[in-house]
Amino acid sequence: MSKITLVTGGTRSGKSRCALNEALKYENRVFLATASVCDKEMKKRVDAHQAERGNSFTTIEEPIDLAKALGNLPANTDVVLLDCLTVWQGNLLYKYNDEFCDFREISELLDVLRAPPTNIILVTNEIGSGVVPENAMARAFRDMAGKTNQLVAEIADTVILVVSGIPVVIKG
Amino acid sequence: MSKITLVTGGTRSGKSRCALNEALKYENRVFLATASVCDKEMKKRVDAHQAERGNSFTTIEEPIDLAKALGNLPANTDVVLLDCLTVWQGNLLYKYNDEFCDFREISELLDVLRAPPTNIILVTNEIGSGVVPENAMARAFRDMAGKTNQLVAEIADTVILVVSGIPVVIKG
Amino acid sequence: MSKITLVTGGTRSGKSRCALNEALKYENRVFLATASVCDKEMKKRVDAHQAERGNSFTTIEEPIDLAKALGNLPANTDVVLLDCLTVWQGNLLYKYNDEFCDFREISELLDVLRAPPTNIILVTNEIGSGVVPENAMARAFRDMAGKTNQLVAEIADTVILVVSGIPVVIKG
Repeated sequence: MSKITLVTGGTRSGKSRCALNEALKYENRVFLATASVCDKEMKKRVDAHQAERGNSFTTIEEPIDLAKALGNLPANTDVVLLDCLTVWQGNLLYKYNDEFCDFREISELLDVLRAPPTNIILVTNEIGSGVVPENAMARAFRDMAGKTNQLVAEIADTVILVVSGIPVVIKG
Repeated sequence: MSKITLVTGGTRSGKSRCALNEALKYENRVFLATASVCDKEMKKRVDAHQAERGNSFTTIEEPIDLAKALGNLPANTDVVLLDCLTVWQGNLLYKYNDEFCDFREISELLDVLRAPPTNIILVTNEIGSGVVPENAMARAFRDMAGKTNQLVAEIADTVILVVSGIPVVIKG
Repeated sequence: MSKITLVTGGTRSGKSRCALNEALKYENRVFLATASVCDKEMKKRVDAHQAERGNSFTTIEEPIDLAKALGNLPANTDVVLLDCLTVWQGNLLYKYNDEFCDFREISELLDVLRAPPTNIILVTNEIGSGVVPENAMARAFRDMAGKTNQLVAEIADTVILVVSGIPVVIKG
């Protein structure tokens, strides 16, 4: 029986490392990277995460169509580490430039999670605990990200909130 | 014995739905709405919350004087769902335009909560976990909202933190 | 055996008061203040915290070199309340104006915490749960602060997350 795990937390809370530790419990591992490396700052961050993972994952890069990527995994994959839902939704917003944020890619991912092909660990970001952003697009993004977190957490078997590197299991 | 419950969480964390589920445990329900519907974005949000509640609540709208509204409830009210403290404090700040934020409406609400006329469930927002805002009024608002959350939580019998739709009971 | 406690939470979450309550369990107390009082708003905040502490602490002010301050404590100190890591890192960033944030003061503090001269309670701030700041320096600060929180939490015997004034022990 495949298991869905959601790891959430603020920026630099240690959520990627926590998710990595969860993934290392399995044998054949895929890392599904959503980040488009578009600037130096992002490259530094992605490189640091890659160094942490070492060579123990097959890496697949897919910034938009996660459902498709999850439908085309290498045979014998035991676990997928998907990092992260927030960057992915930023990619969707940037691609479609649509404040309604009603993207088919999101509902397709939820469909895959409801009948997962393998164990999936998803990393996401808490972004709704600051003051209201002045920018309308930032508010729309914050709403979409929060709503998706709720929908994924509802499907997930386990939800872990990471605070200062400490994993706190809040579901499962 | 009337009970006070505080439900807190980030934007789109699922806190309104969690509070709604708590309220549905009672019979005669009042929804005390603090939102002034002043723009399309807010209207969309309010409409979505109303659709979720259906017709199972008597709705009272009061953007400023919550103590007064709580003193004039319909007879036989079993529970009040007050949504939300953060929007309300924004209304106070907008009305008085005073950075000291020492509003009598807040101390009057706290007095009511200390001797509540019925069960009250209050929804509030975590807004203090982002970087320091550059705008002084936003900082004053953040301070007021955080302080009020502490004071209400101290009085409350139960405090629930909602993360990605998952209720985490942190008091009671 | 000296004990390290980390108290974290959002702005106005009640974390300083929680740390104060922890410190009051000990006899000879030192308050290690990192805040440079540089404006009226900060002065008001520092004064409020001082009024809360009363005269029950020896106060040491050190905005930069915390390792040195911890190496020169009064004899018989039973506990140091260090408030707070986030303001301190803001001081470092302001002093060196260096986005790489690889400050020797941070690694020196970590060394002291690994072999502490006395019980130490550290206050810090969750700042990574809002939307991504538009300002590059704010992003660098947020990354540094989050990373330091992780490193201190790893060393700490006890980590407490404060939400609306409620202490939630997440480690220890």
